[in-house]
Amino acid sequence: VPRLALIGVGLMGASFALAARRAGAFDRVVGLDVDPSALDGACSAGIIDSSAASLEAAVEGADAVLVAVPPSEIPACVAAVCAALGPSSAPVFDVGSVKAPVMTALRTHPGGLPARFVPCHPMAGAEGQGYGAADATLYRQRRVFLTPGRETDPAALAAVDRLWRMCGAATRIIDADAHDRAVAATSHLPHLLAFAYMARFAADGHALFDFAGPGFRDFTRIAGGDPGLWRDILLSNRTAVVAELGDLVRRLEALGEAISDGREATLEAVFVAGRDARRDYASGRIEDGVGGRHGVA
Amino acid sequence: VPRLALIGVGLMGASFALAARRAGAFDRVVGLDVDPSALDGACSAGIIDSSAASLEAAVEGADAVLVAVPPSEIPACVAAVCAALGPSSAPVFDVGSVKAPVMTALRTHPGGLPARFVPCHPMAGAEGQGYGAADATLYRQRRVFLTPGRETDPAALAAVDRLWRMCGAATRIIDADAHDRAVAATSHLPHLLAFAYMARFAADGHALFDFAGPGFRDFTRIAGGDPGLWRDILLSNRTAVVAELGDLVRRLEALGEAISDGREATLEAVFVAGRDARRDYASGRIEDGVGGRHGVA
Repeated sequence: VPRLALIGVGLMGASFALAARRAGAFDRVVGLDVDPSALDGACSAGIIDSSAASLEAAVEGADAVLVAVPPSEIPACVAAVCAALGPSSAPVFDVGSVKAPVMTALRTHPGGLPARFVPCHPMAGAEGQGYGAADATLYRQRRVFLTPGRETDPAALAAVDRLWRMCGAATRIIDADAHDRAVAATSHLPHLLAFAYMARFAADGHALFDFAGPGFRDFTRIAGGDPGLWRDILLSNRTAVVAELGDLVRRLEALGEAISDGREATLEAVFVAGRDARRDYASGRIEDGVGGRHGVA
Repeated sequence: VPRLALIGVGLMGASFALAARRAGAFDRVVGLDVDPSALDGACSAGIIDSSAASLEAAVEGADAVLVAVPPSEIPACVAAVCAALGPSSAPVFDVGSVKAPVMTALRTHPGGLPARFVPCHPMAGAEGQGYGAADATLYRQRRVFLTPGRETDPAALAAVDRLWRMCGAATRIIDADAHDRAVAATSHLPHLLAFAYMARFAADGHALFDFAGPGFRDFTRIAGGDPGLWRDILLSNRTAVVAELGDLVRRLEALGEAISDGREATLEAVFVAGRDARRDYASGRIEDGVGGRHGVA
């Protein structure tokens, strides 16, 4: 029977296990996690069928291995999984938000970037964390980026691509560096801004929250994310993030001067450009999939 | 029969008319607008009963007058309405987002700040604009700030407070300067950030929107607002907005340096502070109303 080895039973991994099993991709899921209580809970919840006592036991006989561990642990975990798999042809894939640093780190390992490893980044998430927030529909209608290297086995790439599509995702194969630069702009910078903005309310928040309307609620929602996870993501993509941040800071400084000087036309031009770009986004002009929309409610 | 004079049949004014009539506050609504087609449309939609040919005709016999015009036009419109009302005791109120500049401008008029004028700011809005987006429930469970001056007639204040409460709103009386400083932090700065951030996608947005997930969608929603309206709001509250912006820019610059230097603890401390403040907000700790929540879905 087709078997999935799931390394890390958090939100992302557990949701994949539920979705892939429902789609018929696997009959059996073996889990491993550094947190024994999470492993027990995922077992009781029917997300995994059994828990393994070691990495070797977890991947033995697996037809695919999902490495769903925190970003900073992905390279070492992928290397260990590939070593343990031996002659098996099972593909290995991850769910990290930054791709090039993982591949670069693996290339410094003996044997280099494993041919069976397919770097993946699903653009999905939820407000909750852990297996308790797992959702079989998390990846449905979501974009999943695959960033193979020149070393990547085309058969492994095709197998992982098929698994994500079975979960309802729209896959796209793209260069890792281009991916990392793009998500610095669309995901990493907004999280940095939301955390920094929200931190302003640490001191006198309770007095100010009474002045917060629905716009505040939506704008700050991503500041509810996991601080350790986002610290890792931003640091691993630091070059692109710092470039995006520097560009925005320069534009904010110019806007501050325009407001001080009362330059109406300057302000309005920026606001019109922003409003128009938001409309383009919301109208869902997309060339290649995900139902022609960007998850706009 | 109690009559409301509605000057400006946009989203805010039309929603108030629907809500107040449903609550039994008025039997008749007379409308006035610079846009004849909006006036006809609001009449056909049953939002107003009739349209007036002049300001004098609109307010004649009115029991209350809502001035729901663009921010920059509020002082002149309030002054004209009060002059036209003559000896009537009808209260006059507005729905502008910035309060102190309106009151300061009115104090330079002959007669000063009218005693019958009650400055108001409802923390409500919608993605749509105009009377077509009007919603009788727009103000339900929403905070409405009232910022009377020392000149304000207590009877007018009480009457307007009662009207908002009849529409389901939770009113709060507060000093205008304190109000303006608070909304600079909770509303005006986020809008400025969202417009500036989104303007970055004016050039190469279509290539990048494929990398945008649900976080991007929520973070940028307020960039869909009216550019001219937000230009007016930010400029009329410029001192407080520039102070908030300057503080944020300094903190973003420090974060950029921390990312460049790989200072994990510095980053995580800010992210934890932001995440904790967001949790406090979401848990809805509020001393005085609106159902103990801040409109968190």
